[in-house]
Amino acid sequence: MRRLTLTLLTPFVALPLCAAEAKRPTPAEIIKQSPASDWRGLDPDNTVLMNVNGTDVIMELAPRFAPRHAANIRTLTREGYFDGLAVIRVQDNFVSQWGDPADDDDTKSPAKTLGSADKKLPAEFSIAYKGLPISKLGDADGFAPVSGFVDGFPVAADPKRNRAWIAHCYGVVGAGRGNEVDSSTGASLYAIIGHAPRTLDLNITVVGRVIKGMEALSALPRGTGAMGFYEKPEQYVPIRQARLLSQLPEAERPALEVLRTESKTWQQLVEARRRGTSDWYVYSAGHTNICNMTVPTRPKAAPAMP
Amino acid sequence: MRRLTLTLLTPFVALPLCAAEAKRPTPAEIIKQSPASDWRGLDPDNTVLMNVNGTDVIMELAPRFAPRHAANIRTLTREGYFDGLAVIRVQDNFVSQWGDPADDDDTKSPAKTLGSADKKLPAEFSIAYKGLPISKLGDADGFAPVSGFVDGFPVAADPKRNRAWIAHCYGVVGAGRGNEVDSSTGASLYAIIGHAPRTLDLNITVVGRVIKGMEALSALPRGTGAMGFYEKPEQYVPIRQARLLSQLPEAERPALEVLRTESKTWQQLVEARRRGTSDWYVYSAGHTNICNMTVPTRPKAAPAMP
Repeated sequence: MRRLTLTLLTPFVALPLCAAEAKRPTPAEIIKQSPASDWRGLDPDNTVLMNVNGTDVIMELAPRFAPRHAANIRTLTREGYFDGLAVIRVQDNFVSQWGDPADDDDTKSPAKTLGSADKKLPAEFSIAYKGLPISKLGDADGFAPVSGFVDGFPVAADPKRNRAWIAHCYGVVGAGRGNEVDSSTGASLYAIIGHAPRTLDLNITVVGRVIKGMEALSALPRGTGAMGFYEKPEQYVPIRQARLLSQLPEAERPALEVLRTESKTWQQLVEARRRGTSDWYVYSAGHTNICNMTVPTRPKAAPAMP
Repeated sequence: MRRLTLTLLTPFVALPLCAAEAKRPTPAEIIKQSPASDWRGLDPDNTVLMNVNGTDVIMELAPRFAPRHAANIRTLTREGYFDGLAVIRVQDNFVSQWGDPADDDDTKSPAKTLGSADKKLPAEFSIAYKGLPISKLGDADGFAPVSGFVDGFPVAADPKRNRAWIAHCYGVVGAGRGNEVDSSTGASLYAIIGHAPRTLDLNITVVGRVIKGMEALSALPRGTGAMGFYEKPEQYVPIRQARLLSQLPEAERPALEVLRTESKTWQQLVEARRRGTSDWYVYSAGHTNICNMTVPTRPKAAPAMP
């Protein structure tokens, strides 16, 4: 009863394997054995470091999928638009959303202006599938005929219609919009904090994903207003600052590496997830889903001494 | 920019429809029009009311799927086993787990005994599919050939192997186990708080689901220890009390109704989710998944005056 009952409940638990049984490497072992070339650093112009109530949240933008929104978010971030804004909505098993509280309420002080960012952007719901360097998953999920990973993003695609899009998996970030499909600017963003609401796919512009610090958005008190909005200003969770890594001195940039989803190591991790990651598992569906896979990050290896 | 950008981001938003367009009823409309016979009350012997740090969490047990575990949890609850225990683990996008902190740590005071509950139970990972009154979903999800709902639970099934099991969707509750498949007793439980980790299916005994109060488990600070365990006792989230509804005076029992998943109303809600629940949606995959559906609850209608 003691330690066992409580601890062994995770896909990532590493159990000792006998030599003869060592045919199922754990994710930790796969990562340990991976070549350095399977990892990449963060693109400083494409990565936002956001301080949410004291916790660092790191978000990679998706310029391949939403170039205009990514550019707008870069501009907004550079000009300090997000500094002092707040998480204003947390709906359980759905989204955390942040932006300018005054944007939603005429009784408050006027909303921040978007500065030199575009006030009007086109909807960027999908891109062409043809030629997309996708690492296919091979496992059908019912929402789209093709799924896989591109640039670290979970991607679904419909080759017949020649379109591909980022799927609304846990941690994915989108740009809130109104009734008009082209009413998002990137000034109001949301992250998925529950089971993937794939019905949002192709209905809204996805702009990136959180690669670190999700708990600062997922563990927040749920809003009690309609759709999870906080009802009182004192409930707002402050976004103290957001900066592109390129705005920060190099020494202050988070030293993280991200596994390349086009790498062999990634394929091994997918296979491990598909087959069960340890001997704790007595059954395996032999199947996984883009939204069941998390792209690993790790501290950047120190440069070799000269 | 104002209200629009921030508010319209939910499958449940109700937009005004012109009369001619009123062909897509919203979930709220479907529920409003549902006959009373499509709803059921809570079975007092089968429902646990748990106080997690001051918030009520209501859990329905799954005796059809795990009769021995459900009986054991009933016994443990009746005898006050869970009173004063704690949530000891919260792993982001995976599980919150509760039980006896001393059960995991020999340095602490001895673990609580299980009283008259069974100390050893069989694994209850699946039941026979033949004859199961399942409301099929019809949408394939890749993890199992058949999926649908039974008694309000999301269920996957493999008719060829004549087995069915509760799927690890958001809010589903299972019994932690060690290496041995028959090492769970129901004394240590976990709830899914993120994207459905369907790889757990058929690997562990599922005992029920949370029908109200999930935020008391999902919005907790994430544990910083391995696998999300809290590292310090002061981080434990207290479970003040757990009671079967049948232990409470009738007036103190939560007056809730649950939509029957064998009802026509439920089928309409599934269809609404599959097609998009409002005109905000410009695209629909025409597909849903058992883990994208939440079974509605509502306050019990007051009895008619005599």
